[in-house]
Amino acid sequence: MENESIGYEIHLKKRPIGPVKLDHFGLVKTDIPQLKEEGDFLVRNIWMSVDPFLRIYMASGTKHAAAFELNKPLTGGCIGEVIESKSSKFKVGDYVKANFGWRKYWIGKDMDSVENSISKIDSTIAPLRSFLGLLGITGMTAYVGLFKICNLKEGQDAVFVSSAAGGVGSVACQLAKIKGCFVVGSCGSDEKARWLVDKLGIDHAFNYRKIGQYNISEELKRVFPNGIDLYFDNVGGKHLEAAIDNMNTFGRVALCGTTSQYNDDGNASYNNQNKKVTKSNSDGPSNLSLAVSHRLKLQGFIWSDHFDILNEFNANMSQWISEDRIRLQETIFEGLENAPKAFVSLFNGKTVGRTLVKID
Amino acid sequence: MENESIGYEIHLKKRPIGPVKLDHFGLVKTDIPQLKEEGDFLVRNIWMSVDPFLRIYMASGTKHAAAFELNKPLTGGCIGEVIESKSSKFKVGDYVKANFGWRKYWIGKDMDSVENSISKIDSTIAPLRSFLGLLGITGMTAYVGLFKICNLKEGQDAVFVSSAAGGVGSVACQLAKIKGCFVVGSCGSDEKARWLVDKLGIDHAFNYRKIGQYNISEELKRVFPNGIDLYFDNVGGKHLEAAIDNMNTFGRVALCGTTSQYNDDGNASYNNQNKKVTKSNSDGPSNLSLAVSHRLKLQGFIWSDHFDILNEFNANMSQWISEDRIRLQETIFEGLENAPKAFVSLFNGKTVGRTLVKID
Repeated sequence: MENESIGYEIHLKKRPIGPVKLDHFGLVKTDIPQLKEEGDFLVRNIWMSVDPFLRIYMASGTKHAAAFELNKPLTGGCIGEVIESKSSKFKVGDYVKANFGWRKYWIGKDMDSVENSISKIDSTIAPLRSFLGLLGITGMTAYVGLFKICNLKEGQDAVFVSSAAGGVGSVACQLAKIKGCFVVGSCGSDEKARWLVDKLGIDHAFNYRKIGQYNISEELKRVFPNGIDLYFDNVGGKHLEAAIDNMNTFGRVALCGTTSQYNDDGNASYNNQNKKVTKSNSDGPSNLSLAVSHRLKLQGFIWSDHFDILNEFNANMSQWISEDRIRLQETIFEGLENAPKAFVSLFNGKTVGRTLVKID
Repeated sequence: MENESIGYEIHLKKRPIGPVKLDHFGLVKTDIPQLKEEGDFLVRNIWMSVDPFLRIYMASGTKHAAAFELNKPLTGGCIGEVIESKSSKFKVGDYVKANFGWRKYWIGKDMDSVENSISKIDSTIAPLRSFLGLLGITGMTAYVGLFKICNLKEGQDAVFVSSAAGGVGSVACQLAKIKGCFVVGSCGSDEKARWLVDKLGIDHAFNYRKIGQYNISEELKRVFPNGIDLYFDNVGGKHLEAAIDNMNTFGRVALCGTTSQYNDDGNASYNNQNKKVTKSNSDGPSNLSLAVSHRLKLQGFIWSDHFDILNEFNANMSQWISEDRIRLQETIFEGLENAPKAFVSLFNGKTVGRTLVKID
């Protein structure tokens, strides 16, 4: 992909059923889009991020948003540079953050910049890719979940974080430690568990694959003898059930993602003509009666509903970054053509921290 | 039980495994307890209530509270009359409300009256048994769930109530209608469904037994074309899953009870030696990924955490009762000896509204 006069896009070619695979995607050559109207500007992407939740919209739409269209480029977080402009707001050389990942070039429009979340970023205060990480969705998601959804109690809460070696999980762990809490994380390998304890300084970490999903509850009972006050749930399924088993009265659960179920297609099973034939057995928590007796709050959230705390977030996070109190591990894939590989790797436990693709 | 010089108690004789049955209980003759110290007073119970959640503590304790002891009287809501007293606070002829149901006589103590929730009631403002119903736990539970946990939006919310013909459910339905909401209820018979629409004036009701648990979601889609904003969950399991399928963004779920699962023993199965042998398949909601994308809040609650709204509750509820805008259907069993029958009937869909036992 050295020819700068050709655009490239990653298209969704087939809807995933069961585990998402490389052949659900296709790399497509395109022309570089042309500026047409006043206010248009051309962006060349430099970085993009991949997130597990995209799997939902690859399979089907929800009430909340439509499915990705087949044979069209996917979307997702990106950082790019403005290389041509008819806009007075976005000039050549500006760096921008937007939701037009999975492609090399795109046209932005002044008037649509807010609704498409296109914003200028200040590349002098941190490396460009931070704006897809600690200062972006990853950092904001961890921050909102702990402080806004769960009202983390400084120095008091016993905190459990699943998928703790992932981007959001690792930031949630560090934020809770900065606030003086007891923090335990679960992850998918012994190496990650060691990294969480040795490098991030959390109190305990365990490899749930070794323990087995039905034993997570026992492990949590052992490591939280006084119960869990706050569970930051990136996984759903048996992890959530195990956490609920061990939550203290008035415990709070931030429902941030259900990686364990994204490959499930809403609990439907399919025959080999891809027709839905049965409901499969649920991975859902069977112990919600404990949510009543223990007065638990489980709340789903998305970072973008909480721009009211953006200034507070930026101020605190920049400070903690500058004090080296918080960091984000990154797994970087080189080249837009490897974006599908980056995405698929999110589901097999092989990536650490935030997964990014360097586009050029 | 005509001999006034003999006490009676209902004891838990065996812990229920699977459906609760009459032979888990036993009627036991006792002496009438004697006043010993200053501050003691003797109460003869007149009414008691039975509630499904007691099933949890019959089977085993939770982190929150111990299991009922075998061969000891059960506890639960009651209304009685003080018939002997060495107390300056509770005098002969006073009516009291407490948690010492399942027995004919009990001794109260001045100094323990707060922690044992013993309170005097004013029998002139409503029939005695109302204090176990609309002005008691039933009314308070419905009120707290709708207004405090879910912040019901007057005239705006589309409200779904499960077990809508039950005590709490029927009050929740009426409160939501008083506040001008669109209200749909589910229940266990066609007769109850007709009663909910014809007598309580809710907008729609359906018999989930006829529909089948896997079709509740489809029925909800049909009757809530614009989605559900607030779900008052008395059932858990497939009802909860179906509601989550149909919740609007920022929807709120009050987790009030999981009748569908109380007979489940924490998803364990037992062989005929009563040894736990397997985890059964979950009845839990398999679609909590929707709680993330739709930013749902699910919150368990218990009425007794919310005494801060007691004055507001009493004022509003008494007014609505006096205006005949709210009523509570009652199923009354006669005689303490029939308390087990009353309790068992809660789980087979045969009772309507609040289930009470008249003790003498």
